[in-house]
Amino acid sequence: MKLMKVTEPEAVIEIIVKNFSSLDYEEVKLESAGSRFLAEMITAPEDVPGFDRSTVDGYAVAARDTFGASESIPALLENVGEVLMGQIAPPIKFGQCCLVHTGGMLPEGADSVLMVEDVDVSGNTVQAFRQVAPGENVIHRGEDIKKGDPVFKKGHKLRAPEVGLLASLGITSIKVYRKPCIGFFSSGDELIDYHSKEVGPGQIRDSNAPALMHLASQFGADIIYGGILPDRFEDFLGKSKKMLEDTDLLVFSGGSSVGSRDFTAKTMQELGSPGLLVEGISIQPGKPTLLANCGGKPVLGLPGHPVSALNIFAIFGKVIIDQLSGRAKADYMPTVKAVLTRNVASKTGRTDYVRVKLDNGTDVPRAVPIFGRSGMLRTLAEADGLLIIPSASEGLNAGEPVEVFIWD
Amino acid sequence: MKLMKVTEPEAVIEIIVKNFSSLDYEEVKLESAGSRFLAEMITAPEDVPGFDRSTVDGYAVAARDTFGASESIPALLENVGEVLMGQIAPPIKFGQCCLVHTGGMLPEGADSVLMVEDVDVSGNTVQAFRQVAPGENVIHRGEDIKKGDPVFKKGHKLRAPEVGLLASLGITSIKVYRKPCIGFFSSGDELIDYHSKEVGPGQIRDSNAPALMHLASQFGADIIYGGILPDRFEDFLGKSKKMLEDTDLLVFSGGSSVGSRDFTAKTMQELGSPGLLVEGISIQPGKPTLLANCGGKPVLGLPGHPVSALNIFAIFGKVIIDQLSGRAKADYMPTVKAVLTRNVASKTGRTDYVRVKLDNGTDVPRAVPIFGRSGMLRTLAEADGLLIIPSASEGLNAGEPVEVFIWD
Repeated sequence: MKLMKVTEPEAVIEIIVKNFSSLDYEEVKLESAGSRFLAEMITAPEDVPGFDRSTVDGYAVAARDTFGASESIPALLENVGEVLMGQIAPPIKFGQCCLVHTGGMLPEGADSVLMVEDVDVSGNTVQAFRQVAPGENVIHRGEDIKKGDPVFKKGHKLRAPEVGLLASLGITSIKVYRKPCIGFFSSGDELIDYHSKEVGPGQIRDSNAPALMHLASQFGADIIYGGILPDRFEDFLGKSKKMLEDTDLLVFSGGSSVGSRDFTAKTMQELGSPGLLVEGISIQPGKPTLLANCGGKPVLGLPGHPVSALNIFAIFGKVIIDQLSGRAKADYMPTVKAVLTRNVASKTGRTDYVRVKLDNGTDVPRAVPIFGRSGMLRTLAEADGLLIIPSASEGLNAGEPVEVFIWD
Repeated sequence: MKLMKVTEPEAVIEIIVKNFSSLDYEEVKLESAGSRFLAEMITAPEDVPGFDRSTVDGYAVAARDTFGASESIPALLENVGEVLMGQIAPPIKFGQCCLVHTGGMLPEGADSVLMVEDVDVSGNTVQAFRQVAPGENVIHRGEDIKKGDPVFKKGHKLRAPEVGLLASLGITSIKVYRKPCIGFFSSGDELIDYHSKEVGPGQIRDSNAPALMHLASQFGADIIYGGILPDRFEDFLGKSKKMLEDTDLLVFSGGSSVGSRDFTAKTMQELGSPGLLVEGISIQPGKPTLLANCGGKPVLGLPGHPVSALNIFAIFGKVIIDQLSGRAKADYMPTVKAVLTRNVASKTGRTDYVRVKLDNGTDVPRAVPIFGRSGMLRTLAEADGLLIIPSASEGLNAGEPVEVFIWD
C-alpha cells in the first residue's frame, strides 16, 4: 500500500502563504466595514481632536492666574460665562474664567481647566482652591492623531475601535479586501442530505456541511453549497470545475475511505496546475487532509470524520481565508493558558490536538481532556477548545501548563 | 456637589441578572441557528451512529476467527465481497470476511475490522497477520449518542460542533431565544453626524455610534439607530419612549458632561419603573455609567468618552445582551494570561481596565500597557485587549502575571 506523504503543520501554513494571495478590493461603507481587512493605508485627513477640549466639568482658565492658589489662599477669578457645547468659545482675558463642560472647547486665552470640585462659585466670582498646570485637564488639538499621520496599515482588521477612529476622522467609505466565497461540496455514497427524516441502513446524514458552513461564515467568508457529489468521476469533476470558476476556494468534505480520498486527489490534479501541494498533515485528528493549488485557487480536501474535518478547517481553513482576505500577520495568536488535569500521551513527530473542557479552577484555568474517537461529534460539542501537543513532545503530564485554542 | 454613588462591577452584573430575563423564543432553521442560544432542551431522537461502523479501511471479521494470528502464523479468511457505502452489508459466516471502507456498515456476523495494513490479499483469500479484539476499529450504534439521551441544555450556545451534532440527529428546526434588538441614541450638542465632511469649531463627529453598533452586532444583537438626540428634554423623552416600545434594550451614548448625564438620568426615571438602578460603576475608564430598568426593559447610559463607552459596552452591554439572549452562564470566561512588561499604578476600591498590546514574548505572552487618556480612541485601536486590575489591588509590577480580555 502507498504510504501517505505527510507535511508538518508549520510547513502547510508556509505553503498556503506562498501559494495564495489576497483577493481584489472593494469600497464599502463604514457601517459594513467591521471585521474586514484594510486594502489601503489610512492617513489622517485632519487633527483629532480638532480643537483643545476639556476632559472634565470645570472652569477654563489661564494656569498662571491660579499659581499659588490653595485652600487657605484661594485665587479669585471673574466668571464671564459658559462655553456652549458644539459652539465656538468666547475668549477670556487676564483674571477671567469660563464654565466649560466635559468635551467642550477651550476658549482663547485659556490653557487649562479647574475642576468644579476645586472651586466655590458666588455670582460671577469663582474662588480657586488649588493651582493648575498649563495643559491640565485638557486634551490638545491633534493629541490623539495629527493630520497626515499614518493611522492603519494595509491588512489591519477593522474592529470596533478602528471603526470609531475612522468615523472620528470622517472616513465613511473604505477600501477593504473582498470576502472570499467558498464553494462547498460533500462527498461519499453513505451520505444523505441532513434534512432527511429517515436514514437507511449504512447511511448517515451529511452533518459536516452545516457545521463547516457556520465556521466559514464566522471566519468572514461567503458560502455556496453545492450539495453531495455522487462518486462518479465525470460528474464529480464537472461540478467541481464549474464551482471553482464561481468561487475563490473549493472545499471537499467527506470521503473518509482511502478510495474516496484518491478520488478527491485525482479531481484536484485535473482542476488546474500545479495541483496537489499537501497529501497529508502530521496532525491528529485530521491527518488525511489534501490541499491543492488549482490555477491559483486553493482547493481543500477535508477528512470525513466530523471532528477531524472541523479541526482542520478551524486551523488551516482559517489560514486560507485570512490569506485570501488580505489579513496582516498578527503579532499574537489568542490562545488560553491552562493547567492540564491529567496525563495525555502523544506520538513524537505528530502534532496532537486534544479536545478539552475549560473551567476556572481555583487560581488558573484547568484544561480537562475529553477522550473519544474522532468520529464522535459529541466530544467536540462538549469541548471549549483544543489543546496543542507539539510534534516534539511525547505527551503531557497532569499539572503541566498548556495552550488552548478556543472554539466559539 | 452631589457625589456619584458608585456600584462594584460584580454587583452590577448581579443587578443585570436579577432584573432582566431572556426574551421569548423563535423557531429557526439549522442554517441560521449558529451562534444562537437554545430555548429548549434537546434530547436525541435516534442513536448516533445509527449502525455499527468501521473507523478504518479494512476487512470486517468475527474477532474470534483471528485469535492467535501473527506474522508467522497468519489466519486465513475467505473474502466474500465488499460493503458498499450507504448500503446494507451482506452477512458473513464463520471463517469469512468482507472488505469495508472507513465509515462503512459492519456486516451481520462481524464484530471488528482488520486494517488493510495487517493483511495480504490474494484472490478471495485474506491472510490476517495479527489478531483483533471484539469491537476493534468499530464505532458502535449509539456510541456517540443514545436515543433519548439529553444532548444540550436550554441556554447552550450553538457553535459549529453543536450545529453538526443537530444535523447528524436530523434536527433542522430549532427553538432559540429571540435576538435582542437595541435602540441606539447619541446625545450631546457638540456631536454631529459622522458622515459630515466639515466639522465646525467645538464640534466632533459622533464616532461612538458606528463603533458601538459594530460591537453590538458582534454580540448577536440587531440595531435600530435613532441618531443624535437634541438636548431638549421633551424631544429627548418622546423619542426615547417611542424607541423603547420598539426595542428590547435602549442605549444612550454621549453626554459626558455632568449636565448631560443628569439629563439622561432624568429621562431614565421617566421612561418606566423602577427606573435607575446604577448611577456609576467603580471602574476606570467608564465610571459615569447609568443603568435603569424601565418597565422590565434595560436602559444603559454610556459615558461619552469613546474608550470608556466601548469598555463599558464590551463588558456590561455584553452581559445584558447575553441575559436577554438566554445564554447559560459559562463555566469559563475566555481571557488570556500574560506577563506585564512595566509597572501600572491603580487606586484600591476601583477596578481598572488598562489597554494593552499583546505579543508572544519568548515563553509566555507579554502585555505591554498603552497609556493615554480615555478620550483617545487611538490607544484602543492600538490595543489587543484590556488588562484587569482588581479593586483590591494598589497596582501591578512589571513581571506579574495578568489576565487580558481580548478585543476582536
